Amino acid sequence: MSPAAPLPTDDATHWVLTLSCPDRPGIVHAVAGLLAEHGGNITESQQFGDPLSGLFFMRVQVTASVARPVLEAALEALTREFDLTWSLDISGRPVRTLVMGSTAAHCLNDLAFRQRSESLPIELVAVVSNHTVLEPLAEFYGIPFHHVPVTAATKADAEARLLALVEELDVELVVLARYMQILSDDLCRALSGRVINIHHSFLPSFKGARPYAQAHDRGVKLIGATAHYVTGDLDEGPIIEQDVERVDHSRAVEDLVALGQDVERRALARAVRWHAEHRVLLDGHRTIVFR
Amino acid sequence: MSPAAPLPTDDATHWVLTLSCPDRPGIVHAVAGLLAEHGGNITESQQFGDPLSGLFFMRVQVTASVARPVLEAALEALTREFDLTWSLDISGRPVRTLVMGSTAAHCLNDLAFRQRSESLPIELVAVVSNHTVLEPLAEFYGIPFHHVPVTAATKADAEARLLALVEELDVELVVLARYMQILSDDLCRALSGRVINIHHSFLPSFKGARPYAQAHDRGVKLIGATAHYVTGDLDEGPIIEQDVERVDHSRAVEDLVALGQDVERRALARAVRWHAEHRVLLDGHRTIVFR
Amino acid sequence: MSPAAPLPTDDATHWVLTLSCPDRPGIVHAVAGLLAEHGGNITESQQFGDPLSGLFFMRVQVTASVARPVLEAALEALTREFDLTWSLDISGRPVRTLVMGSTAAHCLNDLAFRQRSESLPIELVAVVSNHTVLEPLAEFYGIPFHHVPVTAATKADAEARLLALVEELDVELVVLARYMQILSDDLCRALSGRVINIHHSFLPSFKGARPYAQAHDRGVKLIGATAHYVTGDLDEGPIIEQDVERVDHSRAVEDLVALGQDVERRALARAVRWHAEHRVLLDGHRTIVFR
Amino acid sequence: MSPAAPLPTDDATHWVLTLSCPDRPGIVHAVAGLLAEHGGNITESQQFGDPLSGLFFMRVQVTASVARPVLEAALEALTREFDLTWSLDISGRPVRTLVMGSTAAHCLNDLAFRQRSESLPIELVAVVSNHTVLEPLAEFYGIPFHHVPVTAATKADAEARLLALVEELDVELVVLARYMQILSDDLCRALSGRVINIHHSFLPSFKGARPYAQAHDRGVKLIGATAHYVTGDLDEGPIIEQDVERVDHSRAVEDLVALGQDVERRALARAVRWHAEHRVLLDGHRTIVFR
Repeated sequence: MSPAAPLPTDDATHWVLTLSCPDRPGIVHAVAGLLAEHGGNITESQQFGDPLSGLFFMRVQVTASVARPVLEAALEALTREFDLTWSLDISGRPVRTLVMGSTAAHCLNDLAFRQRSESLPIELVAVVSNHTVLEPLAEFYGIPFHHVPVTAATKADAEARLLALVEELDVELVVLARYMQILSDDLCRALSGRVINIHHSFLPSFKGARPYAQAHDRGVKLIGATAHYVTGDLDEGPIIEQDVERVDHSRAVEDLVALGQDVERRALARAVRWHAEHRVLLDGHRTIVFR
Repeated sequence: MSPAAPLPTDDATHWVLTLSCPDRPGIVHAVAGLLAEHGGNITESQQFGDPLSGLFFMRVQVTASVARPVLEAALEALTREFDLTWSLDISGRPVRTLVMGSTAAHCLNDLAFRQRSESLPIELVAVVSNHTVLEPLAEFYGIPFHHVPVTAATKADAEARLLALVEELDVELVVLARYMQILSDDLCRALSGRVINIHHSFLPSFKGARPYAQAHDRGVKLIGATAHYVTGDLDEGPIIEQDVERVDHSRAVEDLVALGQDVERRALARAVRWHAEHRVLLDGHRTIVFR
Repeated sequence: MSPAAPLPTDDATHWVLTLSCPDRPGIVHAVAGLLAEHGGNITESQQFGDPLSGLFFMRVQVTASVARPVLEAALEALTREFDLTWSLDISGRPVRTLVMGSTAAHCLNDLAFRQRSESLPIELVAVVSNHTVLEPLAEFYGIPFHHVPVTAATKADAEARLLALVEELDVELVVLARYMQILSDDLCRALSGRVINIHHSFLPSFKGARPYAQAHDRGVKLIGATAHYVTGDLDEGPIIEQDVERVDHSRAVEDLVALGQDVERRALARAVRWHAEHRVLLDGHRTIVFR
Repeated sequence: MSPAAPLPTDDATHWVLTLSCPDRPGIVHAVAGLLAEHGGNITESQQFGDPLSGLFFMRVQVTASVARPVLEAALEALTREFDLTWSLDISGRPVRTLVMGSTAAHCLNDLAFRQRSESLPIELVAVVSNHTVLEPLAEFYGIPFHHVPVTAATKADAEARLLALVEELDVELVVLARYMQILSDDLCRALSGRVINIHHSFLPSFKGARPYAQAHDRGVKLIGATAHYVTGDLDEGPIIEQDVERVDHSRAVEDLVALGQDVERRALARAVRWHAEHRVLLDGHRTIVFR
């Protein structure tokens, strides 16, 4: 197939390819060449070479009438040459997502609404909660609800049940939507890179419990929220997105909590979208976000 | 003089009155009554009762043809009844300000420019620096420049010289415009409530040295700046204003430094303006800002 | 009752009083005096004198153990002296609200969710739509749904039915939540000051139809939304709130539409909250918003 | 030279290449190939295919030890194949810039300060003004000042003098920094794509004269500024950057003017930086901005 072949054809697929490798000349040319060889037309492309880590990162969207195994085989060849780490997906394919929450509904409501009305590319396959408050909302959006209570005694069982659900339902992404339980180190490791949490402060300010009370006491003039990947190190995982809202002295702690809900859902929705669109790549404990 | 007397008359003065006292009914009525008795017309008024501290705060701008001693005597009477703390000034009177800097010019340039062209109500009576880089800029704006080098050995002398300048020049406000020396506890105490610092991070994140390097390492998605009153407790003084700017993975530390300059000068300029307009009141270790 | 009486007592009511009148000395004193006489403790107070219109505007929240008729009688006396226009309400009382929509659900979803979870002080008494898409959402939130189709032939009947509903249900506020029909002049007049619309552009840019397509064609770098009172003059009513979001060249019209939904619901929710909290006063064709 | 040659070498140059052409498969591969052949290492790359205009746009930064004529010859070959329009420059080379102003100094002050302290990649070769107010500021920054008064009678002469200066001084960019004269159609055409204006409103709102007065009268809640290329069609040129600031009812027209200065200089500084870094490409009457 020639690079000049008219595209997109009727049966072309829109692929999204992300990759990273040690930085050196010729990568872009090699990747662009591979895609051109398979009749691909690049519709979006971003790249970044990190001078600190010495790593090169790339995300390409390409329209091509090519079977996945063919493209994968070609990428394997490149992998050996450039020491690539890559992933290939169909652009816009909904990512199978499980949401964990406790009693606050704003993040779940936001994600479910955006999934339905704004083509947020996720499929909500389960809501898991240690309370039952969120059940009617889950039901309204047709998402199976699992009540998994957690006590000190049952925590291990509860996490086992979560892991079983992740397996059974082919869950690709777990979203902690103001879930008020701390995951164990083992669970964090098992789901590494697949769990996004929304922390209700502008990290690294106000780690830990009751961040709005801490923010109020410090007299800050902006409150924030941070969406980040979960690691065993609480509130220290790679940051995906942050946002803030202006407040003033007249706001009580409960006002900060209410105002904060807007910032939380906004930051979380963006982080989930970028993750689901394969725009977030890990560079050590920091993220590359190709928006 | 009757409250209905036509105002403002030609020789009326525009006053700004700020006060705080234990919260209880009748304060607003008493203050408004006092002002009405003296023919005052209130042009701006804000108030706040803090349920935590139990204190009431008020700022009033009023036009009145009344001599200062008369108004002060009336306020003294109220002081006894309501346990008031108050201050009275002529609205818009330039506050005598001394700027301390090291080598970065952006904050000094911004304040001096705004003073000249945007009626920022300050009078810049001196620039004090441990370097000479800022001298031409100070000269251009007609501000006397004082080179006061600081070493471990001369620090006490340097601070004595600063205090002497503050006294001689009737300095009301000291602005640390990216001054890279830490003030001694004694100096902080001596100038308490009269020193504003701009810290180049979104406090309480990244206290201490090299905040942009810390921010870069943590991979934050917003960088910030914090204007605060200086206390002996480094980077812990009452916050007056904060602002942020969006950054992404492609920004190196030196980019954050450059971008941060915009946030710093913006937050500092607002804090200085609000202080000079008597809009900032202290409520313990937090500020009330009547914007 | 003495002004020093301990307050709030157990049966004190939290009132919100808004007023406007020709500006002249003594108003604040008179109002504060009236409230003090009735044992009121002012908890929040804002005022503004407009030098252009010569009008004075005030909003006071006050806790007082006083019957409404007593307070109203006192205000009537003041009305004659100062030519006041005033309104008195119980602070936080939910405003009876009717939402009109067509097919887009984001604004209705947002208002209903905030009403339930963030104490937005409205009571949603009806959803009226010329389509049926919004019925399940209304049902989920327990809001009676009225399907009122509109054609050129039935427009007058549809508006009559809306007016009848407004009357029957004691509707105080009508929210046009992306309702895609233009109200007749007569209806606008009949409901003057009680209808808030969200226009999907930063007015006065891009009035009329398809504002996102207009914005895309003009190549703007920010898109916006405007919440305003509806008048007979389309898209020209008094603006209550505006907000914007950054976009770039890569965004197609449909991206702007999706991004715009966030801005629309944010601006609308704020405008509805401020209206319901009696924070919005009309000053000719502009609004005073006491936030 | 092999693509794997170790780079950057000591004498490598950092190039920036921008190009546009009709969109079709193979362009990225061809460009990346050309650069790889000349030992180039791509350090930054952005691209965009506009589905409306059918045009493809690309900006590449590349480090390569290659002489300019060699690179240009290679690009010429590609030009014929892909119908390219391209430009090649040394990354970071200061663009020769002439600033026109009248009496407001904030934009000139900002550009000159950023040029000196933030490595804004421009060289300020002249300030031209119909007043003399800006002369001391130009002098302080060592920029030759040209006083060119403009009256109805002398307008043609004044423009001729400006064009002569542009020629003599090899001016690449003219910045209208609140220059209060309208350029003639002929001049706009002669300098097409090389003149950036800052308009003190959020275009297309409030075109023409006194935009802040218009904004105040309309009661907007945000004021804005727009940096755009100048065309013969006043205030209709391609938009490069826009920004806004929140205002409220208490702001008089002169407050909007003062607040607006911050927005103006911010939007203008970004537009000038992006232009000087070859990040702005024209796509009909809209701009592609590769930030």
